Amino acid sequence: MSATVLDGKAASVAVLKSLAERVAALPFVPKLVFVRVGDDPASASYVRSKERLAAKAGIFSETMLLPEGSSERDLLALVARLNTDDEVDGILVQLPIAGIAEQTILESIAPAKDVDGLHPRNVGDLWRGAPSLVPATPMGILALCDHYQIALSGAEAVVIGRSNLVGKPLAALLLGRNATVTIAHSRTTDLANVSRRADVLIAAVGSPGLITPEMVKPGSAVFDVGLTRVEGKIVGDVRRDVSEVAGYLTPMPGGTGPMTVVMVIANTLLAATRRRGVA
Amino acid sequence: MSATVLDGKAASVAVLKSLAERVAALPFVPKLVFVRVGDDPASASYVRSKERLAAKAGIFSETMLLPEGSSERDLLALVARLNTDDEVDGILVQLPIAGIAEQTILESIAPAKDVDGLHPRNVGDLWRGAPSLVPATPMGILALCDHYQIALSGAEAVVIGRSNLVGKPLAALLLGRNATVTIAHSRTTDLANVSRRADVLIAAVGSPGLITPEMVKPGSAVFDVGLTRVEGKIVGDVRRDVSEVAGYLTPMPGGTGPMTVVMVIANTLLAATRRRGVA
Repeated sequence: MSATVLDGKAASVAVLKSLAERVAALPFVPKLVFVRVGDDPASASYVRSKERLAAKAGIFSETMLLPEGSSERDLLALVARLNTDDEVDGILVQLPIAGIAEQTILESIAPAKDVDGLHPRNVGDLWRGAPSLVPATPMGILALCDHYQIALSGAEAVVIGRSNLVGKPLAALLLGRNATVTIAHSRTTDLANVSRRADVLIAAVGSPGLITPEMVKPGSAVFDVGLTRVEGKIVGDVRRDVSEVAGYLTPMPGGTGPMTVVMVIANTLLAATRRRGVA
Repeated sequence: MSATVLDGKAASVAVLKSLAERVAALPFVPKLVFVRVGDDPASASYVRSKERLAAKAGIFSETMLLPEGSSERDLLALVARLNTDDEVDGILVQLPIAGIAEQTILESIAPAKDVDGLHPRNVGDLWRGAPSLVPATPMGILALCDHYQIALSGAEAVVIGRSNLVGKPLAALLLGRNATVTIAHSRTTDLANVSRRADVLIAAVGSPGLITPEMVKPGSAVFDVGLTRVEGKIVGDVRRDVSEVAGYLTPMPGGTGPMTVVMVIANTLLAATRRRGVA
């Protein structure tokens, strides 16, 4: 038996299509602004891939490039201008930026335009169960569950990893869907014992091959978020032979990754409709 | 065998004493302001018990009583004044208040003076692992663990209940102490199976006698936060004969309750030292 492949690439195309239909029906064109500092090629290519998706979804995007070595003051002034610009629905500052504290930037973005979902106000609203913008990776995992109709209510979900970007917001989302949620991490005493309980298992650690077949409940859905470069190859947290035990498994690459980028677009649509009072 | 009683009353006296020592060593007197609206006797008595503890800790407290039927505008104006009053370290608005949305009030209090820890900014900071003020009940449970030297790092903790006041912030605190944390709730499929894994079990549901001996791991520490009035008697979520299985058990009353009130004082001290830049 081999697990059903949770094809994030195909699902992301379907999700993008439905987002484009919703955008087309709006009485306005949502606008997303990318902010970059300096000419890091990786950062440039990452922004380009998001620009392309925004265009496909019918969203207007603009990229603002500050010169290398720009001061914190310059950057904050730009963000402040975007915060009050009524045409701007989403702001995405490409991190990290050398010499400027990440936290200062995250807190400078208006929570209503924070499509990365990392402002403390959005984190708080997520856990309180209030409307919020949520980081893209956990949103993508939920969207992938929905795409493949993987039941979450009453399911045992185990999240391995407790980062602010993935593990913790994912736990909040799964709890909101009525899963029984366990957060495991580097200090978990017997990880195999914990992971084997999971109907839905998410590995988001960055430890290549951490999850072996013995650690997986037969028939469960397994999501691989870890991503490590080993000898030039990208390796996930989940060993590939887990597919002999799991019922569903994300490929690596092509699983949770493609969904993440699309969720930035979904967040822009959400931010735009909320802020402009369109349902 | 009978479980060790986690005597919240005794522990709270010890914690209050150490708080009083720390307050006495400060170069200023911290100030806590209670705000009440109308003359509800239960609410008045609850504030009085906190006033008494504040006095014992050497904290100056003031109670502001707005007349019954005061408008939201009046209340918000008062809170705004307290927010900017440099002498005020902590603000505690006694909820609920008839005719005024709870959320509006919670969000009006300056996060740095929010000794109830319910402002979305504090919720977000708690989950991000940043300095924050945290609701008193979960703080009290952690303090009780510390008082009885119950190990949390690497322990399996199961929190039953996902309220904003107890379950969710407690999960964040336990995670911060490196416990493997599970959040269970009304939609959890097999609660006994989940609760039996717990080295540290916290029931915060409000369902009298929910936790029976069969649902408890032998030797574990069990905290009863639920509180329901049944035929005039206060009954917790944990059946009393759980003490035959558990290694530690909070009494009801006299367990988590007394710790909660003292933690409001601890929060005031924390808010005061942080805001005034005293370590």
